[in-house]
Amino acid sequence: MTKSFTVTARDPASSARTAVLGTAHGVVETPAFMPVASQGSVKGLTHAVLEELGAQIILVNAYHLSLRPGADAVAALGGVHGFISWQKPLLSDSGGFQIFSMSPLVKVVEEGVRFSSHLDGTKIFLTPEDAVDIQAKLGTDIMMCLDYFPPYPATETTMREAMERTGRWAARAKKRFDARESLQQFWGISQGGVYPDLRAGGIAGLMEIGFDGYAYGGLGIGEPKSRLFEVLEQGDALLPVDKPRYLMGMGYIEDIFEAVARGVDMFDCVLPTRNARNGSLFTSRGRISIKNVKYAADANPLDEACSCYTCRNFSRAYLRHLFERGEIASAVLNTIHNLHFYLDIFRRIRHSIQSNSFSLLKKSILSDSNVEKEEKT
Amino acid sequence: MTKSFTVTARDPASSARTAVLGTAHGVVETPAFMPVASQGSVKGLTHAVLEELGAQIILVNAYHLSLRPGADAVAALGGVHGFISWQKPLLSDSGGFQIFSMSPLVKVVEEGVRFSSHLDGTKIFLTPEDAVDIQAKLGTDIMMCLDYFPPYPATETTMREAMERTGRWAARAKKRFDARESLQQFWGISQGGVYPDLRAGGIAGLMEIGFDGYAYGGLGIGEPKSRLFEVLEQGDALLPVDKPRYLMGMGYIEDIFEAVARGVDMFDCVLPTRNARNGSLFTSRGRISIKNVKYAADANPLDEACSCYTCRNFSRAYLRHLFERGEIASAVLNTIHNLHFYLDIFRRIRHSIQSNSFSLLKKSILSDSNVEKEEKT
Repeated sequence: MTKSFTVTARDPASSARTAVLGTAHGVVETPAFMPVASQGSVKGLTHAVLEELGAQIILVNAYHLSLRPGADAVAALGGVHGFISWQKPLLSDSGGFQIFSMSPLVKVVEEGVRFSSHLDGTKIFLTPEDAVDIQAKLGTDIMMCLDYFPPYPATETTMREAMERTGRWAARAKKRFDARESLQQFWGISQGGVYPDLRAGGIAGLMEIGFDGYAYGGLGIGEPKSRLFEVLEQGDALLPVDKPRYLMGMGYIEDIFEAVARGVDMFDCVLPTRNARNGSLFTSRGRISIKNVKYAADANPLDEACSCYTCRNFSRAYLRHLFERGEIASAVLNTIHNLHFYLDIFRRIRHSIQSNSFSLLKKSILSDSNVEKEEKT
Repeated sequence: MTKSFTVTARDPASSARTAVLGTAHGVVETPAFMPVASQGSVKGLTHAVLEELGAQIILVNAYHLSLRPGADAVAALGGVHGFISWQKPLLSDSGGFQIFSMSPLVKVVEEGVRFSSHLDGTKIFLTPEDAVDIQAKLGTDIMMCLDYFPPYPATETTMREAMERTGRWAARAKKRFDARESLQQFWGISQGGVYPDLRAGGIAGLMEIGFDGYAYGGLGIGEPKSRLFEVLEQGDALLPVDKPRYLMGMGYIEDIFEAVARGVDMFDCVLPTRNARNGSLFTSRGRISIKNVKYAADANPLDEACSCYTCRNFSRAYLRHLFERGEIASAVLNTIHNLHFYLDIFRRIRHSIQSNSFSLLKKSILSDSNVEKEEKT
């Protein structure tokens, strides 16, 4: 079952598709949402709850785990699967994004990236080959290539250099990956920002090297949505149809639908879990800020239409009380709800593609019940 | 089923007994441990997990809930049962202990207690009658009488005054309680510290008024253990055998066994849940501080002998990692374990009394595997 990707249905009106992604730890039905477990734990949830919610795959962060407890420590405990006791598929991000966003004193040279640990300032030099070695020790099912991108907006010249360097790193990393037998998959990350020629060049470079899957990197960092969607359309036309496509780090429901329509299969984002901890909750009628005093005596569930444990059992008044008191159960119950909301939308997306109703679902979710807006009352 | 208490077995060698306590929301098998849900949530757990762990009854705090969201707000949402969506038995502490331990500027007069809210300094005057009215609104199955005690050590004179005032308050409160029809139970709290005459007087006073259950208050605040046990022996001889007895706020396993042997039926304590959040975990081989670096690469479960979700699934290395990273799952998994440990000991206590092996169990738990000590390695 390792390294398979079988398209099972296509939307006639868009590039949306369902597929089954095979990994060494089981299959993932796509389009799929990966809850983020940077440190090996989806914040607020036990694995048991996560499985009940229907999470098929979670994302861990190679940067965080390689700093603490360290890749060798994780390897000695049976890789991430053994260490965190999660026997379903795992994807590890390479850490590039965290290095550029969290580390002081980052310096990128051709050989790799020199940075200081955000924890104690320890100087670290990381090459694309190192990122492969670390993730091989972590033993995740899907490893990501180390990429590099400048902040938005970047000039075409700066972006071209970043895209080309990311391409050269990808070639070196793939060579390192190919040097050992592995049940792991290795996915490339294209750069090029929203410059069509550069993104096309980035994608072509990766395809020439050949990866098990292809990610869009360096997006969702400030560029206009229209440019983002153009990039995805361009990628849809260029990328092989028989490999999974992954839009990294983007999680607005609206963007997810637009990306699925443009052939994207995989997503990850901290949005549902981080919002949950901040008391910002998704409902079928819009977003709710549970700390609002108007919910203090509200005996209704968060969302009448929701079947999650939180909505089946608890009132808005109780959820507000837990949030205001800083109770741990607030983070837990809110995260259950928001993640159920996301995973349920992905179930509905897959079902709609298989029953030729994707565009109807997209329209209904994004129009009168706009989930990005504040709840209408 | 309201207000019944049926002794089902007696230990021939001590005053230990099992019983079934009937309440308006179901029965509690005693000896029973009540997890503490001061604000209506056992910190770190959802009710679903709590029920899986076998909690039969939880304790909420009238002081906290009457300040926020307020007794009327709770009443409007269906009482505490409706507000927090917990349909099993609930006991509410009257708030006396919190007033004396958390509030600045407490002044006790014959009429009641004047204090400032620990939240915003609001001046509050609370009478024993008010404490009844508040708990009537909260609708808990077992209400506690408002009591008063000085800090340890107190002179005999001071203690006598406190005990006598507590007795007069109990009479007033019972009169208020009796003035309305109720499915709730009302339990008295004896004072008197460790002065035998005073404790005897306190108990006699309560028995003369007549309560559905009898609690020992003002203990576990610094007095020698031997004096505490003498009080319980004294109470065992004085209290009616057909009413439940509750030792408030004490939770060391050793003390629990000694108290059960002296006829105590009910216990509550924050120890297992608070310790869990601090990384202090009970095991059959002693206590473990999970933050210790020696567990960083330890692939073993917390306790080989434990069948809880945490021990069935996770290594000490992962639990240490979660604790060090401040992950919410650390509090959740640790609390599951510690509370399972407590509730399991209570199941074993009940079983041992019913099978004439209580003293054997007591000896085995408290001797070679002393749970209060650091783990032997």
